Amino acid sequence: MLEVQRDLLDYQGSGTSVVEISHRSPAFMDIAQRAEASLRRLLNVSEDYLVLFLQGGATLQFAMVPLNLSVQGETVEYLDTGLWSQKAISEASYLRNVHVVASSTDSVPDASTWDRSSNSQYLHITSNETISGVQIPDYPLDDGVTLVADMTSDILTRHLDIDKFGLVYAGTQKNMGPSGVSIVIVRKDLCREPRQGEPLYLNYRIHAENDSMYNTPNTFAWYVSGLVFDWLLYEGGVAEMQRRCEEKSRKIYRVINDSSLYFSTVEPAFRSKVNVTFSIRDESLTDKFLTKAAEANIVNIKGHRKVGGFRVSLYNGVTIEAVDALVDFMETFEREIA
Amino acid sequence: MLEVQRDLLDYQGSGTSVVEISHRSPAFMDIAQRAEASLRRLLNVSEDYLVLFLQGGATLQFAMVPLNLSVQGETVEYLDTGLWSQKAISEASYLRNVHVVASSTDSVPDASTWDRSSNSQYLHITSNETISGVQIPDYPLDDGVTLVADMTSDILTRHLDIDKFGLVYAGTQKNMGPSGVSIVIVRKDLCREPRQGEPLYLNYRIHAENDSMYNTPNTFAWYVSGLVFDWLLYEGGVAEMQRRCEEKSRKIYRVINDSSLYFSTVEPAFRSKVNVTFSIRDESLTDKFLTKAAEANIVNIKGHRKVGGFRVSLYNGVTIEAVDALVDFMETFEREIA
Repeated sequence: MLEVQRDLLDYQGSGTSVVEISHRSPAFMDIAQRAEASLRRLLNVSEDYLVLFLQGGATLQFAMVPLNLSVQGETVEYLDTGLWSQKAISEASYLRNVHVVASSTDSVPDASTWDRSSNSQYLHITSNETISGVQIPDYPLDDGVTLVADMTSDILTRHLDIDKFGLVYAGTQKNMGPSGVSIVIVRKDLCREPRQGEPLYLNYRIHAENDSMYNTPNTFAWYVSGLVFDWLLYEGGVAEMQRRCEEKSRKIYRVINDSSLYFSTVEPAFRSKVNVTFSIRDESLTDKFLTKAAEANIVNIKGHRKVGGFRVSLYNGVTIEAVDALVDFMETFEREIA
Repeated sequence: MLEVQRDLLDYQGSGTSVVEISHRSPAFMDIAQRAEASLRRLLNVSEDYLVLFLQGGATLQFAMVPLNLSVQGETVEYLDTGLWSQKAISEASYLRNVHVVASSTDSVPDASTWDRSSNSQYLHITSNETISGVQIPDYPLDDGVTLVADMTSDILTRHLDIDKFGLVYAGTQKNMGPSGVSIVIVRKDLCREPRQGEPLYLNYRIHAENDSMYNTPNTFAWYVSGLVFDWLLYEGGVAEMQRRCEEKSRKIYRVINDSSLYFSTVEPAFRSKVNVTFSIRDESLTDKFLTKAAEANIVNIKGHRKVGGFRVSLYNGVTIEAVDALVDFMETFEREIA
């Protein structure tokens, strides 16, 4: 953040702010290319894949994926594990024949039970559901279907074998940088020509041919993301981030498992390592928990209004020390109540 | 910029960076609402219009305008005054029956000569063409057609009677703030329900119902734009910006008109007050002009590769002093050559 603050008035001695340099300038071209190279290193992305820096968040990808990977009238498959899956399904339903293979909100149904279609153009999964706190533990399927994943909330927090996917996308705002950029990693052979009747802007090939600068990109978020990628590489890359997320989440789940006050409705095998959700058995204590937590400087842990309870996000920016403070607080709160 | 720099580490004493606060937090809601209120004041926007803060730049609007303001099979009209008009036309041609009413690159054809269609859903104009330096001097037409304008390069630099338009859009990166937000001001009655076969994300009503937070917005650019709007209000609003753009451009056009070295191919009545384009009669002097200018700290004045010559942008951030320095340089260069 100190580096960003310095570059905000004077980018590397140029006399110009990093937010004022043109996206066509050599300085920004360099920022852009280095960010892509660092992300490719972090995720070990081969030359068979494009890496795009787009706008519109993961939400625009809910439309771009079906438009690019299928044509009207074709069937596309979705696994429904919660609200974000359902948002992707809702958008796709405006554009294609959507077939939902399985639905659950507190677990990931076993792949052997999925109602597969014989002619789907791809299968879409949501790697992690932020609201319920459900995460897909192992990426499934080696049966030839093109696998597409929304990894907005857990990209760069866990191992990812990109070669198993046709396309992976993620908004930057959880683990990569400021909001307003989405990363799309897509196998080149899946990028088709634009088609009459469908927006040119929503075609991957158009963005690829223009190095993700078909229109003026979000230069600030792209630049900060590049700094974050370099920081992640310096800290030990995705393997180290995965280790930290496992350690951070394990500490909180241990308190929940050992508690007679706290509980989680998510089946243990599918509990998210980046969004820990839990509730208090005596619901009347929920507000007291939040108030006492705030007094201890622990904030932003209220659960989503659709599920209630609490949600603790453990994205890469969250330290072990912050988790230790929470764990201490949870234990003290339970002791004092009991 | 100093205010941005301070808020980057600690937004108003919250202890959190302005780029790290959630878009759902009261702090950001306040930023967002104040930015919209200031923009409404600057442009005197009535309650009949929505003001949206979207992503994807003006380029995504090239698709959203036809998708929202017409249905497949209907005719939409475009005035072609240069490259940006043509980009809007190109996208619309993928989606609707596009009828071009007139084409020119060095003037704006008189409205009486336009080849109008009898059943167009709207007429699209590009208020200012950055590459050729052609600006529409008076917004035309009071014949009942819904007028749509791309004002990316001259919004907030000239008087705008929003009530004459159905929709006005603009990317933020020229006169409003960092890149990655587009402003859409649209008359409420033009916002239709989403339609099967068209992306939900590209529907204005969806974004309006979600206060432009259907997906995570570009919070940083939204925040900085709000600061710029307040600065513009403090400086005297759009009337003062128009006065400054007229003064700045007049100074440069005077040098061009009085010169036997410099010339403009744009008809005088249509010369842009925000992008002054000109060339040197002896083309071999172009590089020398750029080199000498750079020595005088005058940079970023090379014309677009499609037209050559020079382009001087006079967006709201450009000072009179900077223009005076350029004018001095142009006069000295001509004297020394002559």
